[in-house]
Amino acid sequence: MAFDFFSQIVASARNVRRVAPTIHNITNYVTATDCANVLLAFGASPIMADEPDEVAEIVALCGGLNVNLGTPNRSTIAAMFAAGRRAVELGIPATLDPVGVGASKLRTETAARLLSEIRFAAIRGNMSEIKTLATGTGATNGVDVGAADATDETNLTLNAEIIKSCAKAFGTVVVATGAIDLVSDGEKTAAIRNGSPNAARITGAGCMSSAVLCAFVAANTQKTNENRSENEAKNAVWTAAVAAISAFGVCQELAAERTAEKRGAAATFRAELIDAASTATPEIFAERAKIELL
Amino acid sequence: MAFDFFSQIVASARNVRRVAPTIHNITNYVTATDCANVLLAFGASPIMADEPDEVAEIVALCGGLNVNLGTPNRSTIAAMFAAGRRAVELGIPATLDPVGVGASKLRTETAARLLSEIRFAAIRGNMSEIKTLATGTGATNGVDVGAADATDETNLTLNAEIIKSCAKAFGTVVVATGAIDLVSDGEKTAAIRNGSPNAARITGAGCMSSAVLCAFVAANTQKTNENRSENEAKNAVWTAAVAAISAFGVCQELAAERTAEKRGAAATFRAELIDAASTATPEIFAERAKIELL
Amino acid sequence: MAFDFFSQIVASARNVRRVAPTIHNITNYVTATDCANVLLAFGASPIMADEPDEVAEIVALCGGLNVNLGTPNRSTIAAMFAAGRRAVELGIPATLDPVGVGASKLRTETAARLLSEIRFAAIRGNMSEIKTLATGTGATNGVDVGAADATDETNLTLNAEIIKSCAKAFGTVVVATGAIDLVSDGEKTAAIRNGSPNAARITGAGCMSSAVLCAFVAANTQKTNENRSENEAKNAVWTAAVAAISAFGVCQELAAERTAEKRGAAATFRAELIDAASTATPEIFAERAKIELL
Repeated sequence: MAFDFFSQIVASARNVRRVAPTIHNITNYVTATDCANVLLAFGASPIMADEPDEVAEIVALCGGLNVNLGTPNRSTIAAMFAAGRRAVELGIPATLDPVGVGASKLRTETAARLLSEIRFAAIRGNMSEIKTLATGTGATNGVDVGAADATDETNLTLNAEIIKSCAKAFGTVVVATGAIDLVSDGEKTAAIRNGSPNAARITGAGCMSSAVLCAFVAANTQKTNENRSENEAKNAVWTAAVAAISAFGVCQELAAERTAEKRGAAATFRAELIDAASTATPEIFAERAKIELL
Repeated sequence: MAFDFFSQIVASARNVRRVAPTIHNITNYVTATDCANVLLAFGASPIMADEPDEVAEIVALCGGLNVNLGTPNRSTIAAMFAAGRRAVELGIPATLDPVGVGASKLRTETAARLLSEIRFAAIRGNMSEIKTLATGTGATNGVDVGAADATDETNLTLNAEIIKSCAKAFGTVVVATGAIDLVSDGEKTAAIRNGSPNAARITGAGCMSSAVLCAFVAANTQKTNENRSENEAKNAVWTAAVAAISAFGVCQELAAERTAEKRGAAATFRAELIDAASTATPEIFAERAKIELL
Repeated sequence: MAFDFFSQIVASARNVRRVAPTIHNITNYVTATDCANVLLAFGASPIMADEPDEVAEIVALCGGLNVNLGTPNRSTIAAMFAAGRRAVELGIPATLDPVGVGASKLRTETAARLLSEIRFAAIRGNMSEIKTLATGTGATNGVDVGAADATDETNLTLNAEIIKSCAKAFGTVVVATGAIDLVSDGEKTAAIRNGSPNAARITGAGCMSSAVLCAFVAANTQKTNENRSENEAKNAVWTAAVAAISAFGVCQELAAERTAEKRGAAATFRAELIDAASTATPEIFAERAKIELL
């Protein structure tokens, strides 16, 4: 099974700029600004709305729905369900970022209910969050990955199996980002070795990658393709997810290189990250992608 | 009718620094930080408060009230009415940014109710939002202007008529920002050709311009002038609005020039925008202003 | 009574990086991003959560609780009490930033109730906020210090007495930041002359210093030390507070120096502030500390 990642990444990133999908974000107030800015930087258009009374209308205007459990409250949780249901009805792809699942009953139960009631096109979390969804045993550390769960070369095969099972169980594409990112649709699993450890030193890297994921999925699974089989549709999501995650990883690398003189300078890195997303070409994303099909 | 925009802009911007009005913002969580920072950069002082139980007290301490519909919920909408009513009672100028009006019933109805119950000194939106308020027919695209509505040289006269009627209908100053900004009090209408297209590539440019507008209005319509006739008062608001919008446009130009080496770099542009607001002199705002009385 | 501030600051700052405490923030949406980023920059790990249903679980996973009254609402206020009570039960240090106390009954009463029901390890505010807590007579200006209250060389002795009494009355360490920062545990009072006036030109400097305070207290009063007497415990908090406030002041100075070419550029200063926190060594904090025991 051969994938021409180069041309797929170029096409995926171009589609984000061409389609400029409006992404409805129901997300946390900590990283909302960063998510809005990274969406704009990649060529998408953000809208944040989390009042239950309006989200069904808002999502209907959008190309994708990005649900993020970062700072949930009763009202925004109700909004997640209302928007998610409407998105499914309308065939609008929805993505889920189960921030901190495992850290509280509220988050764990909300994520479980969302996954049982709404068919998400893709889920993205750190490996602890994904393990918690898949097996109930993630070693979450607040909103950060537990050290034992973080994907490295020693547990790559094991973690790949976990996210593959998780993808199969939920009928969705699953992304677990970390030092090595994993993307699976239950059949194919890719390991992506782009990114920079600097991303763990700023808030929002995870939330931003979920927003970018949603934009890539939205722009690359448009309704013109609605005659596709379910398998074709899932394959389109998986390809878009691989492109999104590797492109955002390349942005981290570019930002790290441009921050090299100010080693570890977190705010400069954060600004360079958005700058890279807004200035790098699809070809740069493709040339620097380090994707391995497992 | 001759306006000495140069000296009016200098005086208006100086007044913001001299009076340092505290601006009460009931606004969205996506751009709240940017709004706070741009207010500080221009010399005003921000406070955010949106609990209905406290806003009547908070606004009473302030020089202006900036209401923004960016991420409304039931509680913050109640706060908008409570604060707005109190502001009117106390003669504190209030401004409205009807973000995304037309995108949901909640936003459309809330904006209409706010406009019917509270006399705003000024309203600022993109042209789609203003058209929706004025005629119910804006082609809003989420929170962005619809392409058909955006003001350019071909529809300048038409759009100027629309905002003029809107200003007359609501008895307020109306500002529609875009590639060309329009400011009308129902009698006089100005076209402002400051600004940079880069502003559309970051979140918050619209919200920030509303916050700046509120600060300029607050600082330039102080109670020392309360013997003014309604016409004089409206004229003072219009002049302050023209100064605010052109000054913020000049900041965008300065930021774009300083980002020229990093073409399109969105985060750098965003930082330079605040830097420009905090360092440019009133004279620079005035020298670079491109204001045409229509 | 001699304190070796140099080695205490080095040890305190190192402990933040070594322990990497997770800090639970119940805070405002204006500066949440900045607080998260400054915590990461100093080596701590932030989590924001303010739904009453989950905060008791979240705080139990954390090393410290940072309560901030910046944009309170009924739901987040309930969360502050739920998390605060649980923190006390578990011996997790909690800090309070009574933003805008005195500006509304809601804030004043909430702060009073929090202080009567929850034993905070430390409180940090500007001098108006602390005076309001201590005497009910602070001349608050929205969320900014009233000019009459701001600590300078002329009222240093008076203000030091006020915060000392306040610390004694509430049985806590009290920090009043400003041009001169004061830190008292009711017995010892330190004056800290680090910092930069630029910090008043950006939003979040106060909130960030409270977050940093919480991280230093959390990392330097770990349970390994739970056999300490109450006096020893309070002394550990006071030392951590002095180290935190002077270290954050040093970051402001470094940022101001690095922004000198762009005098007054607020966004650059803000980025340099986080960069300094993420790159400066504990030794730099210690060398530049200007601490006077009053």
